[in-house]
Amino acid sequence: MAAPATALGIRLRVLVTDPEEPAAQVVPDTPVGDHTDLEALRRLAGGCDVVTFDHEHVPNAHLESLQRSGSVVRPGPFALGHAQDKLVMRSRLAELGVAQPRWAAVVDVDGLKTFGADVGWPVVLKTPRGGYDGKGVRLLESPDDDAAVDWFERVAGEPLLAEEHVDFSRELAVLLARSPSGQAAAWPVVETMQVDGVCREVVAPAPGLDDERAAEATGAGLRIAASLDVTGVLAVELFEAVDGRVLVNELAMRPHNSGHWTIEGAVTSQFEQHLRAVLDLPLGDPRRRQGWSVMVNVLGGDHHDLYRSYLHVMARDPGVKVHLYGKVVRPGRKVGHVTVCGDDLDDVRARARHAADFITGLIDE
Amino acid sequence: MAAPATALGIRLRVLVTDPEEPAAQVVPDTPVGDHTDLEALRRLAGGCDVVTFDHEHVPNAHLESLQRSGSVVRPGPFALGHAQDKLVMRSRLAELGVAQPRWAAVVDVDGLKTFGADVGWPVVLKTPRGGYDGKGVRLLESPDDDAAVDWFERVAGEPLLAEEHVDFSRELAVLLARSPSGQAAAWPVVETMQVDGVCREVVAPAPGLDDERAAEATGAGLRIAASLDVTGVLAVELFEAVDGRVLVNELAMRPHNSGHWTIEGAVTSQFEQHLRAVLDLPLGDPRRRQGWSVMVNVLGGDHHDLYRSYLHVMARDPGVKVHLYGKVVRPGRKVGHVTVCGDDLDDVRARARHAADFITGLIDE
Repeated sequence: MAAPATALGIRLRVLVTDPEEPAAQVVPDTPVGDHTDLEALRRLAGGCDVVTFDHEHVPNAHLESLQRSGSVVRPGPFALGHAQDKLVMRSRLAELGVAQPRWAAVVDVDGLKTFGADVGWPVVLKTPRGGYDGKGVRLLESPDDDAAVDWFERVAGEPLLAEEHVDFSRELAVLLARSPSGQAAAWPVVETMQVDGVCREVVAPAPGLDDERAAEATGAGLRIAASLDVTGVLAVELFEAVDGRVLVNELAMRPHNSGHWTIEGAVTSQFEQHLRAVLDLPLGDPRRRQGWSVMVNVLGGDHHDLYRSYLHVMARDPGVKVHLYGKVVRPGRKVGHVTVCGDDLDDVRARARHAADFITGLIDE
Repeated sequence: MAAPATALGIRLRVLVTDPEEPAAQVVPDTPVGDHTDLEALRRLAGGCDVVTFDHEHVPNAHLESLQRSGSVVRPGPFALGHAQDKLVMRSRLAELGVAQPRWAAVVDVDGLKTFGADVGWPVVLKTPRGGYDGKGVRLLESPDDDAAVDWFERVAGEPLLAEEHVDFSRELAVLLARSPSGQAAAWPVVETMQVDGVCREVVAPAPGLDDERAAEATGAGLRIAASLDVTGVLAVELFEAVDGRVLVNELAMRPHNSGHWTIEGAVTSQFEQHLRAVLDLPLGDPRRRQGWSVMVNVLGGDHHDLYRSYLHVMARDPGVKVHLYGKVVRPGRKVGHVTVCGDDLDDVRARARHAADFITGLIDE
């Protein structure tokens, strides 16, 4: 968010857990503290017009405490609760009548067996809180999976989320922003590709998605945003099932990996829009600047110094936009992304994949 | 440059004269010091891979001193000399055979009279060093102008630059970047509009400019960049004279007002390209993302708090991109700009002008 904040004259203060963290490399005002420490949060919030987030893990009790002291928190704890806890999210979406995989809160192997007998195996088992990028998610082929037994023992009576394993042809995402005054703007629906639970690639707009289905998905996103009183960016991850259903998989309430393409590919990026939304400024135009945008994540791989490899990528293709996050490279960690925009999807996709694979170290020519 | 530096993982250290200066609001590492103080420059340069500029006023003797101590300075003092001193620039362009207004170095009123008798009145008189945005420039209607007499007395024998007053139909600018290894990339030629010597508006690409003339102007720019050993961005401001000549007016060696449109309108912005060029990274694609881009400067006016007025602009037109510089508003000062991109030039221009005029305070609806 630093770049659009600079352009709009908005000053940022970012809580970092370490003075070498990426945000501290690019923002001057970065107090050090933990997001679970209420005093650190109070020091951060003091003098700020609004407090917002780049992840959903700040304890809601702390956010409520900040609100009681007069801080403006956007999105607020009510909305965030649905991104923090997948059981809360599933219950709410059920009430709203939004299409989603069949699910149940299960506390033991018996509960899991009953659910599996109902929806069929395999079944997906998830921790309701704290999972991300495939962590805290398990695909169980049968009720006799030892992992399930261990897991139930470990959580000792806390419910886990069991979900129908959706046979999907692809994954989609609806990205939108909503402001406190209720204005909302949605970017075109995108296709996302996950590998081992981690987002690998995003194509905007989703190829071959018919207008009616795109409008339905966007409509569901807007309904969720309004019902949950979301402020800022909301990402709704969806399955396009082989049986034709479009089902909500996950929610995120912040700028999201499925929206990185908007930096170059849309008139208003998700980062600018998030700032505009949480400050209740009028929202910007979410339309595309160019026909296609493909974003591919750079995951930590063999190259610990990314400089040499992006130098090669720049020389090979002057149209690739490289974004590095200033993180220490660790295997599989998202350490950057590349975006290519243009009118020929095959060309754009091939160039983006090549660049990301080269920087990652998966290919060497 | 902060935004593309963040994306590319390049750390910036910026010398600021005041801790409240715009750069210090957005860059963490901003030592305070004056650009004429060699010790401050040494502290800045220590540990940096390369030293570059956002203005041309650092004394060349200091830059040579930094070079002797092993610092890499780009553009170097030889190149910069041509942007710092208009007499040096005119002599060099004459040697290169680049078309430019007729000119002479004059030290007194007699010299001015001789020059004026030769090229005709009015004559433009300029200070060779330190002028910008119309400052240090005077249009003299006749040799009896008191301002000229006063000026010659004040400079006491130092030559001034006298130039033919070119009757031009419009102004153009060639913007390009060149790296130390000699790679160069030029953006499309733009049309610029000046009011009272201050850039008001830039249209990219220059409407109705035929390909041959555009190629000639770009070729001249590339030749200048190579001959002067420019590294980084070079802006060549041009007159399109009513008699058909295209004449070089000024040079700037840094990201330039005529290139602000590239932030949204081109695949590679001038700010990213400047970083790539001075670091000798491969240059990015300078082509347009959309058909037309119009950039209009926001000058200091009646509104001292720009927040209220840009809020209105955002509400009226969600496609306007607003850039504020974090400067104190003073009459006529460049405090920001707006850019609009699209396929219909009339529409794009009208929207950009309206937004800038509204933020400035020239119009109120």
